[in-house]
Amino acid sequence: MSTTRLVTLPAPLLFDSGHKLDDVTIAYESYGDPSNDVVLVCHALSGDAHAAGVTAGTTGAGETGVQGLGWWDAAIGPGRALDTDRWRIICTNLVGGCRGSTGPSSIDPATGAPYGSTFPEVTVADLVRAQRQFLDVLGVERIRAAVGASLGGMQALQLALDYPELVDRVIAIAATAGLDAQGVALNAIARKAITSDPDFHGGDYYAAGRAPRAGLALARQIGHVTYLSKQALRAKSGADRLGVEGYLEHQGAKFVDRFDANTYLRFSRALTRFELTEDQLARISAPVLLVSFSSDWLYPPADSARLAAGLPDARHVALDTPHGHDAFLLDVDLQAPHLRAFLGESSEVRG
Amino acid sequence: MSTTRLVTLPAPLLFDSGHKLDDVTIAYESYGDPSNDVVLVCHALSGDAHAAGVTAGTTGAGETGVQGLGWWDAAIGPGRALDTDRWRIICTNLVGGCRGSTGPSSIDPATGAPYGSTFPEVTVADLVRAQRQFLDVLGVERIRAAVGASLGGMQALQLALDYPELVDRVIAIAATAGLDAQGVALNAIARKAITSDPDFHGGDYYAAGRAPRAGLALARQIGHVTYLSKQALRAKSGADRLGVEGYLEHQGAKFVDRFDANTYLRFSRALTRFELTEDQLARISAPVLLVSFSSDWLYPPADSARLAAGLPDARHVALDTPHGHDAFLLDVDLQAPHLRAFLGESSEVRG
Repeated sequence: MSTTRLVTLPAPLLFDSGHKLDDVTIAYESYGDPSNDVVLVCHALSGDAHAAGVTAGTTGAGETGVQGLGWWDAAIGPGRALDTDRWRIICTNLVGGCRGSTGPSSIDPATGAPYGSTFPEVTVADLVRAQRQFLDVLGVERIRAAVGASLGGMQALQLALDYPELVDRVIAIAATAGLDAQGVALNAIARKAITSDPDFHGGDYYAAGRAPRAGLALARQIGHVTYLSKQALRAKSGADRLGVEGYLEHQGAKFVDRFDANTYLRFSRALTRFELTEDQLARISAPVLLVSFSSDWLYPPADSARLAAGLPDARHVALDTPHGHDAFLLDVDLQAPHLRAFLGESSEVRG
Repeated sequence: MSTTRLVTLPAPLLFDSGHKLDDVTIAYESYGDPSNDVVLVCHALSGDAHAAGVTAGTTGAGETGVQGLGWWDAAIGPGRALDTDRWRIICTNLVGGCRGSTGPSSIDPATGAPYGSTFPEVTVADLVRAQRQFLDVLGVERIRAAVGASLGGMQALQLALDYPELVDRVIAIAATAGLDAQGVALNAIARKAITSDPDFHGGDYYAAGRAPRAGLALARQIGHVTYLSKQALRAKSGADRLGVEGYLEHQGAKFVDRFDANTYLRFSRALTRFELTEDQLARISAPVLLVSFSSDWLYPPADSARLAAGLPDARHVALDTPHGHDAFLLDVDLQAPHLRAFLGESSEVRG
């Protein structure tokens, strides 16, 4: 059993856009002995703080109820890739999120109504600024590693860039220094599906008691196809390739029940606009482990190799798997030995 | 200058669904000496009868006005891949279309209103049944070749299967015997974008004077990304990868001005459901030239190779190009020598 806890950041959170939010709540979970060194897990576009175990509920004002198994449960636990016997694993719901942390669906204390369209745009730098302030509240001054896949891997890199005094090591899985035009295009189309839905109401749909469900379902379906390889999608549809249509309908419907469209838009934009320049990469002095997957067509191994070449201290493991981008969730066994070894290396190896 | 002409099929057109339509109009263009042997060009999802030249207008009740250069002009003309000095090239707008032939936006004589949702679903077999009846009207009993790319290539194969007495040879470019689950999925999402648009009104949007413009634009954008390779999309977006968003907006807006959503839905379903079994492939006795493109990820060379292996008399040319599926439009020079040679072979070579 795991518990989602809530903390409120004591200082206002500044956004790259110039906005400032007071009383930002961050939802988080923690696994392993609190006296262990911390490994911070950063979630991807549709993730949340509940990375492992089964959640009993939240303490504080957040949502309650069992939420099922955490999204990276296979990777987190005693003896697993992120070994809770050795590390304290912490995962937060990102600011701008919809799963306990302050986001567009949260109540703006100034108006008593949900932020909606007034919630700031977020950048990856904003996301990690909130992570940094959150760790301050917990009294964590140094972390063994920032770990994440996809948007999570981008955060891990950004954390090491912006807070070198905080981050010992980085593990960035299926992540790039900047999405290719194809990824930019597919994300733009997914967002357009949301904003074209009349129930989007410019982002202020909460008061109307509606939500751009059709648009969000479409966005999820587009995303889902991009996360899977050709082979994986073939496997999902089984003997009847036309069955994939029903499978996608199901994926879309499931998603809209648990996710907020305004959050999706903000994270998708953050992901799309993320770009580390050569100069920035050169300033990431922490050792970086990059993991990529052979069948990941949107974040291909070639992009990780390019990223590795720009980093002062990087190693790149390209794993052979048919599962596409989703391999970060499905092929934990392939990743585990690399993650364990990298996390366990003595710090003297560094520099 | 070319002219779009209209003919009305003298007999009712039967559909696989069991529907029957009277007085079906087929729009077509013809290039080259009418006494030459005929090469029938079959258009893809978003094409029309205007394959070459500049159209002055239509004769009969169809639309008028210059429509710009034909969609395959680079391939059709004196000395070109489809040589008008040697062949009479004919291209029709498919039944179910929206560019002169009878389709969902046409007036149903029984009601005086557009067919809309009452227009039958179409299969690739229906499309070629209409082509066959159309050729009968023109008095064409045998054609040198049926030629097409994508959905057009599927028609060319289906024509040879259903009307062996009509079709001497087949050229199927970037076509498969059945779309892979990934293609099925992306087509399903594109259609869902249309049918989710409230302006779709279940397909009966004409009377309302509206159209599912946002949904159709999304469908086109999804299609556009799939027709281009990673490299090609990168090239389109230029130095600023984020510029691809504006490029896609433009593509979507341009498309909705010239295309009908109900037609899109029907052709997309026909394309998705098309599947030639092993037995059917074995019955296609005409020589078939298959052309595929190395960077076409939705209709990859491997699918064409599989198709070739199932056909009694096929040769497969896999061309190296960075232009993806759209190479059939862009890389005419690469295809031309193969098309010319295959069309020009003496018929005795056969069997």
